[in-house]
Amino acid sequence: MTIERFLTRSQGQWRSMRSAHSLAFRQFEDVLSHIEIVLLSADHPDVSDILTRESIDPATIFSPFQMSWEAESDWEPDDPSATSKGSCILIPIPENDRAGKLVRSVGYAETESAASTYHFLDDDTFVLHTTYGQSIAEERIWFISEHVRCRSSVLRTSAGSGVLQTSFASEVRRIATE
Amino acid sequence: MTIERFLTRSQGQWRSMRSAHSLAFRQFEDVLSHIEIVLLSADHPDVSDILTRESIDPATIFSPFQMSWEAESDWEPDDPSATSKGSCILIPIPENDRAGKLVRSVGYAETESAASTYHFLDDDTFVLHTTYGQSIAEERIWFISEHVRCRSSVLRTSAGSGVLQTSFASEVRRIATE
Repeated sequence: MTIERFLTRSQGQWRSMRSAHSLAFRQFEDVLSHIEIVLLSADHPDVSDILTRESIDPATIFSPFQMSWEAESDWEPDDPSATSKGSCILIPIPENDRAGKLVRSVGYAETESAASTYHFLDDDTFVLHTTYGQSIAEERIWFISEHVRCRSSVLRTSAGSGVLQTSFASEVRRIATE
Repeated sequence: MTIERFLTRSQGQWRSMRSAHSLAFRQFEDVLSHIEIVLLSADHPDVSDILTRESIDPATIFSPFQMSWEAESDWEPDDPSATSKGSCILIPIPENDRAGKLVRSVGYAETESAASTYHFLDDDTFVLHTTYGQSIAEERIWFISEHVRCRSSVLRTSAGSGVLQTSFASEVRRIATE
């Protein structure tokens, strides 16, 4: 599995069921959302901006993409601000076919630029490690069929090994007729 | 990682948060439960019974264990039958350090004896495939710290590749003073 193949399989629109587990409080949070993954050209202006700001050589990047998400369950007609939505641009910098770095414009847990490292397990599970200011996230994404992906995440304190939260999402591809 | 090391790490009492995703209906089911994993001796009477019934050579097995679970959220004082609990005995038959078979007295999805195959990924994630009468289950279990495990499962129709349900559990070890 290469990042190119992984992203080609991932592009499109997905309906997500996501459950977050707050371990200390034993609380569940279930969210339905829509996700869209669009591959971008390497000379897309937003990509160029990030490369300049982060001092990244454009020759080292591969297959940048944009991921957008919008929660369904938070949607309230009278309060547009309640909608949980967002978008970020991600830029892979492969080191080899199985591993590399991933630069993103906005992290999940904190609203700052974040650098991640990724690698593939021997069954082609995609594993992503991201260090934020106060926490470390590990995500895993694996396809269980052409149109269904699973995504798990673990959020730890960066100071120690304490696990703050886990989450799991089932992502089903939306077909064109919807 | 060997099955011996994996089971040694797994034995004990765990508090589980489990979310099941019904993909067709987009429904969530969240359950709090207790899990206990106890290693059994190879000559335990219940183990011997299974070996005899399944015509398994006792010399091929390794580290049988019992797993018991009981849901918290279903517990109702006036209706003991509402409690979701159960127990099964599992008997590993290793083929090598990284793979083998697992015989269980009772399957999760159907109340019949089930044979599974297991293997470890290169990051020591335990992967279990079980074929039931009408469905195929794939489970993954991985430790994210000494006292926290993650467990994901996918349930498919055995006839095709349709995904019926996914689930994810966060399992936190119970300490002795609880």
